Amino acid sequence: MRSVAIIGIGQTIINEQWDRSIRQIAAEAAISTLKDARRESADGLYVGNMMSGSINSQNNLGALVADWAGLKDIGAIKVEAACASGAAAFRSGLMAVASSELESALIVGVEKMTDLSGHNVTAGLAAAADADYEADMGVSFIGLNALIMRRYMHEYGWNHADFAPFSINAHANAMHNPFARLHQEICVDDFEKATMIATPINLLDASPIGDGAAGVYIVPAESIQNKARILVQGSASATDSIAVHDRIDPLFLKAASISTQQAYRQAGVGPGDIDIFELHDAFTIMSVLSLEASGFAERGQAPRLGLEGEILLNGRIPISTLGGLKGRGHPVGATGIYQLVEVTQQLRGEAGITQVPDARVGMVQNVGGSGATILTHILERG
Amino acid sequence: MRSVAIIGIGQTIINEQWDRSIRQIAAEAAISTLKDARRESADGLYVGNMMSGSINSQNNLGALVADWAGLKDIGAIKVEAACASGAAAFRSGLMAVASSELESALIVGVEKMTDLSGHNVTAGLAAAADADYEADMGVSFIGLNALIMRRYMHEYGWNHADFAPFSINAHANAMHNPFARLHQEICVDDFEKATMIATPINLLDASPIGDGAAGVYIVPAESIQNKARILVQGSASATDSIAVHDRIDPLFLKAASISTQQAYRQAGVGPGDIDIFELHDAFTIMSVLSLEASGFAERGQAPRLGLEGEILLNGRIPISTLGGLKGRGHPVGATGIYQLVEVTQQLRGEAGITQVPDARVGMVQNVGGSGATILTHILERG
Repeated sequence: MRSVAIIGIGQTIINEQWDRSIRQIAAEAAISTLKDARRESADGLYVGNMMSGSINSQNNLGALVADWAGLKDIGAIKVEAACASGAAAFRSGLMAVASSELESALIVGVEKMTDLSGHNVTAGLAAAADADYEADMGVSFIGLNALIMRRYMHEYGWNHADFAPFSINAHANAMHNPFARLHQEICVDDFEKATMIATPINLLDASPIGDGAAGVYIVPAESIQNKARILVQGSASATDSIAVHDRIDPLFLKAASISTQQAYRQAGVGPGDIDIFELHDAFTIMSVLSLEASGFAERGQAPRLGLEGEILLNGRIPISTLGGLKGRGHPVGATGIYQLVEVTQQLRGEAGITQVPDARVGMVQNVGGSGATILTHILERG
Repeated sequence: MRSVAIIGIGQTIINEQWDRSIRQIAAEAAISTLKDARRESADGLYVGNMMSGSINSQNNLGALVADWAGLKDIGAIKVEAACASGAAAFRSGLMAVASSELESALIVGVEKMTDLSGHNVTAGLAAAADADYEADMGVSFIGLNALIMRRYMHEYGWNHADFAPFSINAHANAMHNPFARLHQEICVDDFEKATMIATPINLLDASPIGDGAAGVYIVPAESIQNKARILVQGSASATDSIAVHDRIDPLFLKAASISTQQAYRQAGVGPGDIDIFELHDAFTIMSVLSLEASGFAERGQAPRLGLEGEILLNGRIPISTLGGLKGRGHPVGATGIYQLVEVTQQLRGEAGITQVPDARVGMVQNVGGSGATILTHILERG
């Protein structure tokens, strides 16, 4: 298996793009990624997307995006793994280039979630959970996360305010990301007074949906010798029971632990070597569970990392450095690619005001469902 | 890139399985494939499916099927390329094993299309076309194929009855396939008198939908030395404009031509070396266009292959040997895997009454949309 490098990145702003369809948003990201990579086309296109079939009445999204971005004739598919669709598409493209079947691949994550006629985004998101035994019983996706958070608080004795630092950090970093959906600093008081959505998750625990797309361009590492290349040193994918009630321990992200350990092994690193960790902070509780399953905190202790400032840009393990899902926004199938784009920005030293000094190794974790599918990637400055 | 072999196959019957959900159908195929491969699990699972998000309210299908089939913890994703989802999932698994990232992969294609409450299969299928410029204008998926067929008949002077041999052959072969949806022999008279659906396509031009799943299990070829292995000698994927009206020539399947030429090159063979061609006969017109684009007939002349008996089991290029989409049935995202299963049966010499004598090289072509995404694979008896 040959080594693969990221040589191009691109992204659109995340907001409510009522004047643009899914193909236009995806094509904008595709074209901007090609431009950054200084390429005209690619040998293959992988589109990460969760809900185009259910809310945009559009499948065959690979062909659609290839067509609309002017990528004539190339092989193109869509990869779906709920909110981990972006990372799953990236890993599929990675395998194709690593196998020597393709000499280059463009991976685009896209989701168009607003301005839909007759479609229900909440029902669409519930399709990430178990349709028959969770969604059909009336549990929304946020409801599942609320059950997990409540259980965590009960089990380990934390208060709701103890989760505030995750949200405050994400909002603070998003202030300086021009592509982020939210540009609004918040404090503990805001966090505590925010509108309740599903107890104990309130509006500032939860990431906002949005329309957006991002792209990365990969080639064999050996073909590029300049410093713009970012090496993919680890890639792993794991699953857990799709339904939360089927897990022996609903407070441990087993698939995060498995995929992180595999990625660490591949990259020859451990938690202490990670300079940035772009985790999947769809809800504050997910940041906590990811940090624990990935080896940055003992079980039940991750809120301490927030309270002690260790997740800040100058902390032990900076997270959500360009806003995370909470501040940047969470166009679900695109999120995994936004995360890879942002870690690439950091490793290139192009993260602007929220640059993590001398970042060399970055980890990205993308979660599908309430922990059912988790992919972890490790990138390193080449 | 290392060579990969198919060592296990499995399939469920295709019909209206009102008593079973998508997870049960997929798990049955997964488990029967593992049994055939004599394996307990796999390093990765790839699920080919088109419509679970739009008609089954279920995404995250990789995790769901892994969970339900007892494939604990393994990485699992869904791959979507409309009706070519099966082959697209296969190719993704193929790359992962070819790259040496995985030592084995299970690929399952599944679609559950009947017994849906409040969902519309015709609208779901239209999502394979261009949602904004075809489907939203009121053209159904069968309507698009009807426009293509009418144009072909006009351009080359064929009558509707000239397409009958494709349907008659498929129905005849399906008689002996216990997994096929239709077990009903037909004659030219039946073909001509069948209920019209979208002129000139009638009920016997069109393949039936259905519920079903199929699986294949792959490993590095070097790891298996017995004669049960079937080598994957060619794999290629190409796209064309998603909308038919955007194609310079709507009567030529450009993506079939490109992917077939690539697969021929990889396998070091040409049309004359292919002993069986499992093509995508969703409609009789698609058989015709596939045969032409893949080098078996001149433009406008493929109906002659039917009329002269060349597509029969003892003909020059046997097609639909176990019923094809027309007779076996077309559970859309599963079809590409059924095709691979059937060619494997033929190359193993396990095709029963419809065995093609001494079949050594088989080609499989899976089409997504009205020709927008086409994948071609070439298999060879190892």
